[in-house]
Amino acid sequence: MSSDSSLSSSPDNSLGATVPQAAAINRPMDLVCGANLPSHSLIFETYGILNKARSNAILICHALSGDHHVAGINAEGKVGWWDHYIGPGKAIDTDKFFVVCPNNIGSCFGSTGPTSNNPRTGKAYGDSFPPIQVRDWVESQKYLMDHLKIECWAAVIGGSLGGMQAMCWSLAYPDKLKHAVVIAAAMRLSAQNIAFNEIARRAIQSDVEFKDGHYLDHETSPKQGLALARMIGHLTYLSDDALGRKFGRLVNGGDIGTTEKELGEFEVASYLNYQGDKFSQRFDANSYILITKMLDHFDLAQDYNDDPAKAFGHAQCQFLVVSFSSDWRFSPLCSEQITDSLMSAGKAVSYIKIESDQGHDAFLLPNSRYQKAVSLYLSRVSNELEESSL
Amino acid sequence: MSSDSSLSSSPDNSLGATVPQAAAINRPMDLVCGANLPSHSLIFETYGILNKARSNAILICHALSGDHHVAGINAEGKVGWWDHYIGPGKAIDTDKFFVVCPNNIGSCFGSTGPTSNNPRTGKAYGDSFPPIQVRDWVESQKYLMDHLKIECWAAVIGGSLGGMQAMCWSLAYPDKLKHAVVIAAAMRLSAQNIAFNEIARRAIQSDVEFKDGHYLDHETSPKQGLALARMIGHLTYLSDDALGRKFGRLVNGGDIGTTEKELGEFEVASYLNYQGDKFSQRFDANSYILITKMLDHFDLAQDYNDDPAKAFGHAQCQFLVVSFSSDWRFSPLCSEQITDSLMSAGKAVSYIKIESDQGHDAFLLPNSRYQKAVSLYLSRVSNELEESSL
Repeated sequence: MSSDSSLSSSPDNSLGATVPQAAAINRPMDLVCGANLPSHSLIFETYGILNKARSNAILICHALSGDHHVAGINAEGKVGWWDHYIGPGKAIDTDKFFVVCPNNIGSCFGSTGPTSNNPRTGKAYGDSFPPIQVRDWVESQKYLMDHLKIECWAAVIGGSLGGMQAMCWSLAYPDKLKHAVVIAAAMRLSAQNIAFNEIARRAIQSDVEFKDGHYLDHETSPKQGLALARMIGHLTYLSDDALGRKFGRLVNGGDIGTTEKELGEFEVASYLNYQGDKFSQRFDANSYILITKMLDHFDLAQDYNDDPAKAFGHAQCQFLVVSFSSDWRFSPLCSEQITDSLMSAGKAVSYIKIESDQGHDAFLLPNSRYQKAVSLYLSRVSNELEESSL
Repeated sequence: MSSDSSLSSSPDNSLGATVPQAAAINRPMDLVCGANLPSHSLIFETYGILNKARSNAILICHALSGDHHVAGINAEGKVGWWDHYIGPGKAIDTDKFFVVCPNNIGSCFGSTGPTSNNPRTGKAYGDSFPPIQVRDWVESQKYLMDHLKIECWAAVIGGSLGGMQAMCWSLAYPDKLKHAVVIAAAMRLSAQNIAFNEIARRAIQSDVEFKDGHYLDHETSPKQGLALARMIGHLTYLSDDALGRKFGRLVNGGDIGTTEKELGEFEVASYLNYQGDKFSQRFDANSYILITKMLDHFDLAQDYNDDPAKAFGHAQCQFLVVSFSSDWRFSPLCSEQITDSLMSAGKAVSYIKIESDQGHDAFLLPNSRYQKAVSLYLSRVSNELEESSL
C-alpha cells in the first residue's frame, strides 16, 4: 500500500516549493474555558501523498512560536522549521507518509488568533481571545483531521509544546492515532519554567506600547517587550556549554573606555538582542501571552487525580519519547517521568536520550542519532501500515 | 591577643543596633577605565573591636545588590543581609574579629554612585558615572583600609561578586591580606551569565522611564525595567528544585475562566513579581547596569595570558573556596576551577562543596555545614593571630 511517490522523489532530498492551504471551520468550537469560537480557520501545509486507505497521515504539532511551514521552501523562500527531518528519504519520509502541519489557533501566522477578526464584534480579538488550552489545539486539529477525511493518524509528532499536544491526542482521541512521538516535552511545567514565562509576559505587558493588550487599536506594538520575552526564552532553550562554545567571552567593538557606554558589547549579547528584535517583527504579543499561559497550565494528569499512569491508562497508541542531555528547560528527567508513567500504565514505549550540547533547541536541529531514532521508529510505523494492507 | 569582647557578649547572639559610618576620600581616585573620581565617600559598618595590633580586621565584600548593613539591626529595624554568619559566637565571630563592610562605589546605598552629585558638574552622575571594575572596588576599599589604619586584613570574605573582590585583593595587594574566603564565585562569567545580565540591562534600558539613563533629571524611574531585571536575577539565583519545593504549581485565585484574564496566577509568579517590585523601590537603575557590567567584564586571568595559575602565582594569602551543589549561576565547577588554579600555583587552599538545594542564594542562607566550614576556617585564622602575638 505504498503511495505514489513520483512527485516527491526529487534527487536533492528536498520537498521544494510548498503552498499553504486553509480550512474554514464554520461552526462554533467549544473551548475548555467555557467560551466558544463562533468559527475559525486553520492554515496548514501538507507534504507527500495520502494513500488510498487514508492511513499514512502524520500530524506535526508546532511549539510556542512555530507555524505551519515545517518543511520545504515557501513562497518567501523560507525553509521550514523542521526541514532537516521531513522530506523524501528523511526521518519523516514524505515518500511514505502524508505529513500535515497546521498553524494552531491563538497563534499569529494565518490561523484564527488574537490578530483575527472576531465575527461577533467585527474587530480584532486582541487580548479578548479566549484562554485556549492544549486540549483546544487538539480539538481544532481534530476538525482539520475531519476536513481532510483522515480516520486515524499514523502518528502525531511534536517537540516541546508539540509533545504536549501529542500526549493530549493520546488521551483525548485514543483511537485516532497509532503512534505518538513526544520530543523534549513534559507532563507539566516546573515552577522554574512557569517563572521564566511569567517574566516574559511581564516584559510584554509592562511595555508602554502594549496598551493593556489593545495595541492593535492604538496602532502600536510592544516590540521591546516581545524582544525581551524572546531573549529570555531563547537563552533558556540553549545550554551554557553551547553558548560558551559559540560565543565564549568575545567582545564586539572597543575595549573598556572612559564612560560606561564605551564598554564593548559581548557577542552573546549582540546575538540575543538580534534574535529578540527579529522575533518582535514576526510574532504577536497577545499570542505570546496566550500560548505561554497555555504551556504553564498544561497538566496531563490534573483530571486523573494527579496520577499520570492513570491518565495514560486511556491511551491506545504506542509511544516514542525523546530527550536531549543538555536540555534544562525540559530536562531528560521530564521525559523519563513520561516514560515511567507509560510503563506503569502498561503501554508500549520506546525512550531515547540523545547526547547533545544544544539544550532544548536540540529538538529542532540536525543530529544523526536523533534522526536515526525517529527514522527507525517511523520505518516500523510504515511497515505496520504495509502489513495491515496485505 | 584577644580583644575586649565585653561589648559583644550579648546572650542572644545578636549584634544589636548598628550605626553606619562614613569615610570621605577627598583626593582623586584613578579608575581602571582611565577616568578618575575627583573624590568619593564610602559608607560602612563595623562590628567587634579592632585589637591593639590592628590585625584582627575582616573585610566583607558585598555582591551585586548588597550594602554595608551586613549584620545586626539598623535604625530602620532591618536585619543585616549576612546576620546569620556575623555576630558574637557566629561563624564570623565578632568576639574575635573586627568586621568591616562598606557599600561600594557605583552602588546606591550611601557611597558615591550614579545618584551622587558629581562635584565637577554639580549634578548627579546618573549614567555618566564611569565604568568601574572590580579592581576599582578593591582600590576604594584600600582607601577605607588606610582610613581605618589597618595594615593587613586577617581575611577578605565575599560571596558571588564579593568572592571576585576577595580574589582581586589577593592579586592587587598580596601582602595586605592573610586569607581570602571566596564563596560561590567564578574567575569570570560564562556566556550564559553574561546573557542573563544583558537581558536584565535591556529590560531597564527599554523602559520608557529610563530616558537614556537621565531619569533623575526627568524625575522618572524605570521601575518596571528594574523589577524585570531583578526577577531574572532572582530566578537564576534559585534552583529548580527549591522553587518546586516552595511553590510547585500552586495557583492563586480563580480557575480557568472565560477570558484570559481570569486564569489564576501561579504563586511562583506572584512571588517573583513581588520581589521585583520591592527591589525596584530600593535600587538604582544606573547602578544595576554599572554593576552587572562590572560582573560581566571581570576576568581574573585576563592580564596574565589567560592563565589563572599564573595570576594566582602573585597571591600570598591562603584561601578557602566554597561552592553550593545546586548553584547553576556560579556552579561548583567554577569554584573547582578556582581551586585547581590555586593548587597549580602552589597556594594553600581548602575547598568545600556544600550540599544545598537553594541555588546561588545558598551563600546568603543558614546552612549548618556551611556555617561550620567558615567557622572552623576562621578559628584557624584567629589562632594564627593569637600565635603571632605570643
